[in-house]
Amino acid sequence: MQAEIISIGEELLIGQTTNTNASWLAGELNAAGIRVARVTAIGDESDAIVDMLDEASQRVKVVLVTGGLGPTRDDVTKTAIGRFFETEMAINDTVLSDIALFFRARGLDLTETNRQQALVPKKAKILRNAFGTAPGLWLERKKSIFVFMPGVPHEMKSMVSTQLIPKLRKRFKGQHIMHKTILTHGIGESFLSEMLSDWENRLPPSIQLAYLPSPGVVKLRLSGRGEDKAILSREILQQVDKLQALIPQYIWGHDNQRLEELLGTLLKKKKKTLVLAESCTGGYIAHRITSIAGSSAYFKGSVVTYSNELKERLLGV
Amino acid sequence: MQAEIISIGEELLIGQTTNTNASWLAGELNAAGIRVARVTAIGDESDAIVDMLDEASQRVKVVLVTGGLGPTRDDVTKTAIGRFFETEMAINDTVLSDIALFFRARGLDLTETNRQQALVPKKAKILRNAFGTAPGLWLERKKSIFVFMPGVPHEMKSMVSTQLIPKLRKRFKGQHIMHKTILTHGIGESFLSEMLSDWENRLPPSIQLAYLPSPGVVKLRLSGRGEDKAILSREILQQVDKLQALIPQYIWGHDNQRLEELLGTLLKKKKKTLVLAESCTGGYIAHRITSIAGSSAYFKGSVVTYSNELKERLLGV
Repeated sequence: MQAEIISIGEELLIGQTTNTNASWLAGELNAAGIRVARVTAIGDESDAIVDMLDEASQRVKVVLVTGGLGPTRDDVTKTAIGRFFETEMAINDTVLSDIALFFRARGLDLTETNRQQALVPKKAKILRNAFGTAPGLWLERKKSIFVFMPGVPHEMKSMVSTQLIPKLRKRFKGQHIMHKTILTHGIGESFLSEMLSDWENRLPPSIQLAYLPSPGVVKLRLSGRGEDKAILSREILQQVDKLQALIPQYIWGHDNQRLEELLGTLLKKKKKTLVLAESCTGGYIAHRITSIAGSSAYFKGSVVTYSNELKERLLGV
Repeated sequence: MQAEIISIGEELLIGQTTNTNASWLAGELNAAGIRVARVTAIGDESDAIVDMLDEASQRVKVVLVTGGLGPTRDDVTKTAIGRFFETEMAINDTVLSDIALFFRARGLDLTETNRQQALVPKKAKILRNAFGTAPGLWLERKKSIFVFMPGVPHEMKSMVSTQLIPKLRKRFKGQHIMHKTILTHGIGESFLSEMLSDWENRLPPSIQLAYLPSPGVVKLRLSGRGEDKAILSREILQQVDKLQALIPQYIWGHDNQRLEELLGTLLKKKKKTLVLAESCTGGYIAHRITSIAGSSAYFKGSVVTYSNELKERLLGV
């Protein structure tokens, strides 16, 4: 099953906001067996949105849209929905009571602008918003599903995890996508690719390989799709084993592993603890180390001596 | 002048990488007076790339593409360029000597895979890569300009700043885009929009207003386009002044200002210095404060006591 993600908001087109919503959503869809074929960001313009919905639905069966559902005038996604689906709007009682509750909990009165957020397309099924006032909207046209969600990240993420993904899984069960990434260092991608050429030639057609270079680290990603999760997993892990045997000296980790995590593993294994003295890194190393769950087992703390005075008093240098 | 950005790479469609390239590039284009109408991310598939180039060129005059120019087999952008522009490939001597120099400087021999990176479309003008081996490619077809650049962020950014933007500015001079963002707190967007309704109604048609809500902060962005930079700037700043007079109690900053910057300004004004004792924040507060240039004027350092032992020894608690 293939999907497209459409992110709406002028802030994505002027460099003000990075589209973290789309990458997060793509990861969740992949985990549910749905491939994302395209991610598009467009501005808050009704015509552009209607065109985009039409285009996307000609390519894929699932179209997921975030943004432009707020109560202010620059948000026009709901207007575009009305036009594209030829549907009238009506106040939805569940949404209205959710919104009323949202404001009451904050000791605020409901204004007319807030009430308007309960005005939703008659044809839409509602995804309730646990953290804000704009509901999610599920609509279908011809053979495509369209789901519209707010652009505020924590509102969208909660809606996706608790409502969207379970619904999509039920509809498209039996689809699986798996990625496995091997982290290498100490060798450039062109040398690595020559070294791995024979292995790459013999990869089964169901498995794709990608090289992801960044300063100091080249990631190798194996991706596959299939109906049988166990077979898919076995096939990919077999290739990971082969790779491990071919280039053990360059591999230092897997998937989203980070160097600070590896450091923690090594410290625990060697039963050592760590204290830092930082200067111009200004606490950043301590921050990276403490971002690993369980780091208190080996990390004692850091003395961030940004001034000469503190360097002398605390470190004696 | 309008542009589209096309980002190529499966990693953008599976949640592995966030598209920071596109947001950065969009900001640079805006500063050069070029509006970005659409950002699209697609995978490393030759057919999808060719279709996308065709589509985009029917909508806009400038198409900027990043990614898929690497030396490994999963990178197919160059193949797609050959098909779309009906151009043959030839070894470019400048590029070849740049690549040879790149490897020689690292004490490495040039392999056949590296040499292939100097194979570029005959019709292309070259943008040299100061930090890597894949050159940028400038091609024109019918009335559209297409520029292909590597996806590795620091290689692309250097190419954009030193070569792409100067070329585009020369071509499209006399276009200006301006954004001004006002940062508010202490009031939700729906209440703010009702409070500002009269002012919003009287905004000149050349200025657009957007509300950008996030937890605790609502940003108000004023955007305008025009031929005369001075007039544009004056019109927007007049509205900023009006806004300042209307809701002074909710405004705490402008544009990309951050709370840690405001803290620094206040400390300098009051001639105070700051030392921190952090525990579970693990150095993150020190990191945020030291991320502000000039923070050494008021920030002495932080004692990050992650363990009880250090809390007792260093802080006496």
